[in-house]
Amino acid sequence: MEYQPINLQEKLGRISELWSPRIIARMNDYHFKLAKLHGEFIWHDHPETDEVFLVLKGTLEIEFRDGKVTLNEGEIYVVPKGVEHKPFAENECHIMLIEPAGTVNTGEIVDAHTAPNDVWI
Amino acid sequence: MEYQPINLQEKLGRISELWSPRIIARMNDYHFKLAKLHGEFIWHDHPETDEVFLVLKGTLEIEFRDGKVTLNEGEIYVVPKGVEHKPFAENECHIMLIEPAGTVNTGEIVDAHTAPNDVWI
Repeated sequence: MEYQPINLQEKLGRISELWSPRIIARMNDYHFKLAKLHGEFIWHDHPETDEVFLVLKGTLEIEFRDGKVTLNEGEIYVVPKGVEHKPFAENECHIMLIEPAGTVNTGEIVDAHTAPNDVWI
Repeated sequence: MEYQPINLQEKLGRISELWSPRIIARMNDYHFKLAKLHGEFIWHDHPETDEVFLVLKGTLEIEFRDGKVTLNEGEIYVVPKGVEHKPFAENECHIMLIEPAGTVNTGEIVDAHTAPNDVWI
């Protein structure tokens, strides 16, 4: 039997909405998600978990209360649990997120930026 | 403060040994590891955990008892826990692995292929 891999570019091609992570894989209790970002997100944190960002295309800045990190293609950052952060992408940026299943993109805040956390593509 | 991202290519440039995963990041109880593969590995499984492969360069084949999957650059596969698999790379291949901290590359087998599971680069 020929099993099928998950192709990141093929999956990204099916995402049109910004700031709305889509699940592409599950590993134990964790989800791998893809998202397209452009512009500024909101300050939030995830009190229960670290969150991993991998940039697949473009540049992502993640602001912290005491500084920031700039991620280019092929770069990873682990935002520690409980650390407030605000993603920002001057131009459209494509990322993979790895975090526990059920993690909400806006943390404990629920507002217009809050996206569903259970949509697979 | 300017925080530093983890650059996959920079980290890969520091790996010379084949089949010996090196840790580059930790997310909760999970490790992100990079490895260079070439040739054939051994049959093994991980009874306690799924294991994620992301190909960064080249082509990786993962054989199963009932088939195989072929992963090219930018492709992911989740090997389910308990499923026997044998990685194979006809040419040198670079991968990222995501799995729980402490996972051994040869599963429950210990032989010449078993690499340390706690080395950071």
